[in-house]
Amino acid sequence: MAIDLRYNAEVTEIVTATEQFIADTVLPLEDQFKGDLEAAGGDDLRVEMQGKAKAAGIFAPHAPVEYGGLGLNMSDRAPVFEAGGRSVFGPFALNINAPDEGNVHMLAHIASEGQKQQFLAPLSAGDVRSAFAMTEPSPGAGSDPSALATLATKVDGGWKINGHKWFITGADGAGFFIIMARTSGEPGSRGGATMFLAPAPDKGIEIVRHVGTIDKAGIGGHCEIKFHDLFVPDENVLGEVNEGFRYAQVRLGPARMTHVMRWLGVAVRAHEVAVDYVARREAFGTRLGDLGMIQAMVADNVIDLSASRALLIKACHELDLGHNAGDETSIAKTFAAEAYSRVLDRSIQMCGGTGVTDDLPLARLQQELRPFRIYDGPSEVHRWAIAKRAVGKAKKAIDAQDVR
Amino acid sequence: MAIDLRYNAEVTEIVTATEQFIADTVLPLEDQFKGDLEAAGGDDLRVEMQGKAKAAGIFAPHAPVEYGGLGLNMSDRAPVFEAGGRSVFGPFALNINAPDEGNVHMLAHIASEGQKQQFLAPLSAGDVRSAFAMTEPSPGAGSDPSALATLATKVDGGWKINGHKWFITGADGAGFFIIMARTSGEPGSRGGATMFLAPAPDKGIEIVRHVGTIDKAGIGGHCEIKFHDLFVPDENVLGEVNEGFRYAQVRLGPARMTHVMRWLGVAVRAHEVAVDYVARREAFGTRLGDLGMIQAMVADNVIDLSASRALLIKACHELDLGHNAGDETSIAKTFAAEAYSRVLDRSIQMCGGTGVTDDLPLARLQQELRPFRIYDGPSEVHRWAIAKRAVGKAKKAIDAQDVR
Amino acid sequence: MAIDLRYNAEVTEIVTATEQFIADTVLPLEDQFKGDLEAAGGDDLRVEMQGKAKAAGIFAPHAPVEYGGLGLNMSDRAPVFEAGGRSVFGPFALNINAPDEGNVHMLAHIASEGQKQQFLAPLSAGDVRSAFAMTEPSPGAGSDPSALATLATKVDGGWKINGHKWFITGADGAGFFIIMARTSGEPGSRGGATMFLAPAPDKGIEIVRHVGTIDKAGIGGHCEIKFHDLFVPDENVLGEVNEGFRYAQVRLGPARMTHVMRWLGVAVRAHEVAVDYVARREAFGTRLGDLGMIQAMVADNVIDLSASRALLIKACHELDLGHNAGDETSIAKTFAAEAYSRVLDRSIQMCGGTGVTDDLPLARLQQELRPFRIYDGPSEVHRWAIAKRAVGKAKKAIDAQDVR
Amino acid sequence: MAIDLRYNAEVTEIVTATEQFIADTVLPLEDQFKGDLEAAGGDDLRVEMQGKAKAAGIFAPHAPVEYGGLGLNMSDRAPVFEAGGRSVFGPFALNINAPDEGNVHMLAHIASEGQKQQFLAPLSAGDVRSAFAMTEPSPGAGSDPSALATLATKVDGGWKINGHKWFITGADGAGFFIIMARTSGEPGSRGGATMFLAPAPDKGIEIVRHVGTIDKAGIGGHCEIKFHDLFVPDENVLGEVNEGFRYAQVRLGPARMTHVMRWLGVAVRAHEVAVDYVARREAFGTRLGDLGMIQAMVADNVIDLSASRALLIKACHELDLGHNAGDETSIAKTFAAEAYSRVLDRSIQMCGGTGVTDDLPLARLQQELRPFRIYDGPSEVHRWAIAKRAVGKAKKAIDAQDVR
Repeated sequence: MAIDLRYNAEVTEIVTATEQFIADTVLPLEDQFKGDLEAAGGDDLRVEMQGKAKAAGIFAPHAPVEYGGLGLNMSDRAPVFEAGGRSVFGPFALNINAPDEGNVHMLAHIASEGQKQQFLAPLSAGDVRSAFAMTEPSPGAGSDPSALATLATKVDGGWKINGHKWFITGADGAGFFIIMARTSGEPGSRGGATMFLAPAPDKGIEIVRHVGTIDKAGIGGHCEIKFHDLFVPDENVLGEVNEGFRYAQVRLGPARMTHVMRWLGVAVRAHEVAVDYVARREAFGTRLGDLGMIQAMVADNVIDLSASRALLIKACHELDLGHNAGDETSIAKTFAAEAYSRVLDRSIQMCGGTGVTDDLPLARLQQELRPFRIYDGPSEVHRWAIAKRAVGKAKKAIDAQDVR
Repeated sequence: MAIDLRYNAEVTEIVTATEQFIADTVLPLEDQFKGDLEAAGGDDLRVEMQGKAKAAGIFAPHAPVEYGGLGLNMSDRAPVFEAGGRSVFGPFALNINAPDEGNVHMLAHIASEGQKQQFLAPLSAGDVRSAFAMTEPSPGAGSDPSALATLATKVDGGWKINGHKWFITGADGAGFFIIMARTSGEPGSRGGATMFLAPAPDKGIEIVRHVGTIDKAGIGGHCEIKFHDLFVPDENVLGEVNEGFRYAQVRLGPARMTHVMRWLGVAVRAHEVAVDYVARREAFGTRLGDLGMIQAMVADNVIDLSASRALLIKACHELDLGHNAGDETSIAKTFAAEAYSRVLDRSIQMCGGTGVTDDLPLARLQQELRPFRIYDGPSEVHRWAIAKRAVGKAKKAIDAQDVR
Repeated sequence: MAIDLRYNAEVTEIVTATEQFIADTVLPLEDQFKGDLEAAGGDDLRVEMQGKAKAAGIFAPHAPVEYGGLGLNMSDRAPVFEAGGRSVFGPFALNINAPDEGNVHMLAHIASEGQKQQFLAPLSAGDVRSAFAMTEPSPGAGSDPSALATLATKVDGGWKINGHKWFITGADGAGFFIIMARTSGEPGSRGGATMFLAPAPDKGIEIVRHVGTIDKAGIGGHCEIKFHDLFVPDENVLGEVNEGFRYAQVRLGPARMTHVMRWLGVAVRAHEVAVDYVARREAFGTRLGDLGMIQAMVADNVIDLSASRALLIKACHELDLGHNAGDETSIAKTFAAEAYSRVLDRSIQMCGGTGVTDDLPLARLQQELRPFRIYDGPSEVHRWAIAKRAVGKAKKAIDAQDVR
Repeated sequence: MAIDLRYNAEVTEIVTATEQFIADTVLPLEDQFKGDLEAAGGDDLRVEMQGKAKAAGIFAPHAPVEYGGLGLNMSDRAPVFEAGGRSVFGPFALNINAPDEGNVHMLAHIASEGQKQQFLAPLSAGDVRSAFAMTEPSPGAGSDPSALATLATKVDGGWKINGHKWFITGADGAGFFIIMARTSGEPGSRGGATMFLAPAPDKGIEIVRHVGTIDKAGIGGHCEIKFHDLFVPDENVLGEVNEGFRYAQVRLGPARMTHVMRWLGVAVRAHEVAVDYVARREAFGTRLGDLGMIQAMVADNVIDLSASRALLIKACHELDLGHNAGDETSIAKTFAAEAYSRVLDRSIQMCGGTGVTDDLPLARLQQELRPFRIYDGPSEVHRWAIAKRAVGKAKKAIDAQDVR
């Protein structure tokens, strides 16, 4: 036993094949349609790309082997998802887009056998998309989960759900929803939440609108939705009643890290586009890439990408060891989201006027990336959590001293 | 004589009237059309808004009084343009948008009486728009003006212009162009450039395309254009032949500062939107605006806006004194462009998920603003110029010492 | 009336004379004694330098004319104090060091005629030094003035003061103290504070120790002191009883700005030392000052210094208009303290290995400067105050809307 | 084979024992003498502490087992050196201070058997200290090694060395020097350098002075020295003639990383001191550690420390695999040096006024740390190297495309 940071040969092969697939099959489509997946064909294109990914042997790298995936653990997912993330269409081609990828992960851990057959199997295979309905408009559950206001009431043979959600990614066209609803306590108190599996479409689920956001690369929108007396039978309770907050944690850490992986691919691509640009262009009689201020930006990109990847690997390793890794995943997510933003911004700046045109993908990728510092916990909430742990530990040590 | 930073009553009245006009007449339109001026009506809407601005007595605050303007100097333009800049439609309503505003300034200083009648009068009145054709695609004139490649050749009774330009703001639909073309020397050497006034449209001017850029608020695009044997008669030479680089400087400093003024309005608005948001919303049982990390962002916004305004005022004062103000305008532009970017970014972050939606104007304003760190000289070029002056001065002092 | 940022001829002459005096008389001493004023002669040297400053006609530029000063307002003090601040010994030479300078300012505004004769006259003349005893060790009055714990009890003919203070600059050897003590209410509530004038030394004043701090340039230490039944007669109450918190505000804003002025001098000097260095040295076959990354540091220094000065001028102008200027002085102080830190840090970095040696003054000046982000209100407290005002204003506007 | 970031049990035990030893034996001495090792006893104290470290079984963790060390590879050194670095006296106690530690590493790789007996054995045992004489005052070898000006001339039976060096750490009192001198080519060209082993003291080695630097924690100074016809016999050539630049690389990467390890210990300690402070103190009725702006600083410290450690582990792993790791070590060094500076600065700020006093170790630790962004290659030089590699790789790819 000793420190080892090398991937085994199997993973390395998957990474190489994925890079090849993205470069040859996916990026040309992204560039042609300027990153607008709906315009490029939406679900039809997704299915088509997924077919090719299956043929290439790189489909669903995270899904259980028995459901057609490659069964990679978190550490091994990292380089594969990064390779897949180089195109914003890539995660859809590989079936590792949010929220499907996190839903696969959670269902594999928590669902009953029957639920796996009904929900996990088609999701792993890309036959359906799914949604994860947790976030609510103010004053409901956002950064503060205890504000959960969507209510599930026990009725005969199941539950009736009423509530209001938004930022429900991919909701429009999803084959089923995983819904987080309050089953005990009051908004503001923690109380108990439960997760429900609800096939869609359903008359109890209203798609109010696609919330207009700065990112455009997905399918099915970031939707505002309402549940009107949505009936969910008892057998569609995911796990145990009132254990929803705990299950959310099971999904949370890994899903946080797969975001970091995919966006790493985007940031690496942007950096490479910019370095290619400054390696070609001249101004003031010098190659741009030989000017000190440009070199500083190139180096800062390299440093930011390296540090993000190193923190990601650490957090994945902790998760693979079965640890909660709340600190490590918050650290990696917060650092990476900010580092990628810097990388994108510098990459644009390095390309001057061309950087803000759609002759290069940089400006639109910056828009895609911007929300990542907010989605999945704003940086401020993660910092608050990190600090609470650090200060709490110090308080405990002080109290222990005081007792002695 | 003593330090005085107060505006006189007349200016204060114009500022107040402009704020009122923007709030009541312009911002509602911007919000309705999500900042897309072409979609909102383009030139027709511009003319309509300009009519209302004339009625409000705030039209063309920078234009000479004899051409229907208010004749304000740079110092007094600052608060008025800031007020007008609060809406991205505002500068069009007041006739102070780029490049028209800078063209008015330059024509007022350099044009002959006849040219003033023909070009300045209708431009000041808003009867036409104009374009300023200087920037060229690589390897032509961009950050490095000496690379100027567009060529004007002397012919009988005038000049023939051939060349390739891009980022020519408002070119599509402009009533005339001011064209910067080489009249002596070779690209790479400085040599001599001349400015030409060319009515448009003209068969010698080809609008190749609207370059797709991240900012969307203008009229007439940022165009790529080509000149094919465009004939300009001798009387349409602006100023003297071969003095174009010098005239560009006349336009440069003030135009740089009016950008800073207008974008200050945008940044102030974004800050106010965000502060309003955090003053209303609660999370974790606390008003967002009472949380320390949010307060830090609010304060940093205030500091950035204050410092930008203070540097702007200093630079304008230098220009009003008739100084070159190369240092002061570079400092103000570089600081402000970066400060506004920070302000926009923090404002979005303060509003969480809502910040990246088009329920608020912040995300689209961030896109509008991004190019400002590149247009009108990237920050890196300004830093290089500032440092060259500082180090050059030190070298000179060292050489003087060595002589002694 | 119009914006004017020019100093009048009299002020310009004082600035020039001060620069000359500092360069010829003061800086050589500072460099010889590596910035250690006590080692250089302490109070004896101070008196000697002050004699020369009087001869040069630049002594006590802030003090009332009737007490031998030059009577400059805040705006005019700015460039003079900056010139004086170029040497850390300079403020002592000009009698504008803290806390004497702020005490002169406050006494001129609040003291009775008798108090002026007894305390202001010798202080203005440099015959004595003074101390301002407000800050207390935790849990007393620090960033939070309402925690004031030092107690003044009414006794026959005067007051008895007991309490514990620290960071009392110049206390050791001071001719008198201005003491802030609680005269009503309890620590934690605001209640009432009173200011007392107490000649020193006195058996009721114990100098516990010089607190060892990172800055070394002063005289008389940053002392920890205790008051043991210190008797102060009624005629030595400064202003009105229970008005101490209000008077502290009178002193606070201007004293905050004079710190910004003096440290600006230090930062400008450091920048010039570094620019001189990079204008001389070569590496990799290039003058350091021609390398892009060095140029970026030079330019960022110039920008930081310019913005600090511009914010300072704005705040001084507000104070001269008689405004409270709480926002403007907090903004200028917070920005400048952080900007100067960046300037010092970059200046060291520009000089490489030499930068951290005492062959140059930079490393010790960085130490002198570090506390400025904490003294006189840490940046965090100023940000909190700035944000509270901004959010408070927004809340008020919201409430006003809601009423309508 | 799979990613594994866990240390084996043996290493974990060494780490624990080292932490205990530093806490119980070393830190109390550091605090008592405010970090001044010379004042605390210098070499005598070093020898005494080393005796205790030997007794604790944690002495010389990096040295070969046959020379009394623990024989740890780079990856395993990381947590041990971090633990030892918690006190600035710690590296001396463990015999892992610079330059001795790097010299042990290099001698173990390059020295002949006889040289090992004569030089490596006593150095590993702590019987002598050593110096590494490479850096020269301008215009000699600093960031640019090709400027090497110290000259070794072949004479009968050996070499005569003449030259001028500075920043030679520990030179005063060193038992021997490793000297880098030019043996072919001219300063400015690369040419050939050779390393020589020279016992000290010697009449040919003049200690000109201890260069006064901001860091104070070492023994034997950062010296300016001169070589006057210093004779070195042929058997004291280290490795091959003219291979010095290559050998310097052998030393460089690992020595760069051990700096990062030791300073990580300092940064972690500073962070813990500050967190302990904010967990105890209250202001405005709240524990400091519960205030948002303080929490942001705590979290940023945690993030910076985590990212530094993650990059360090990556670089050490590369070195252990036998790779050159030029990129990885530059990235880790540059990021860590800047991150630690931020950590120290925030830690001081978190403690307010107390932070700048010597009641806490923070202010003096900040001074110790400042040079790390310059020593061992300034951040700017590392960024230049990182960018050159990245842009160079892009150019190569472009050229390869162009050929096709």
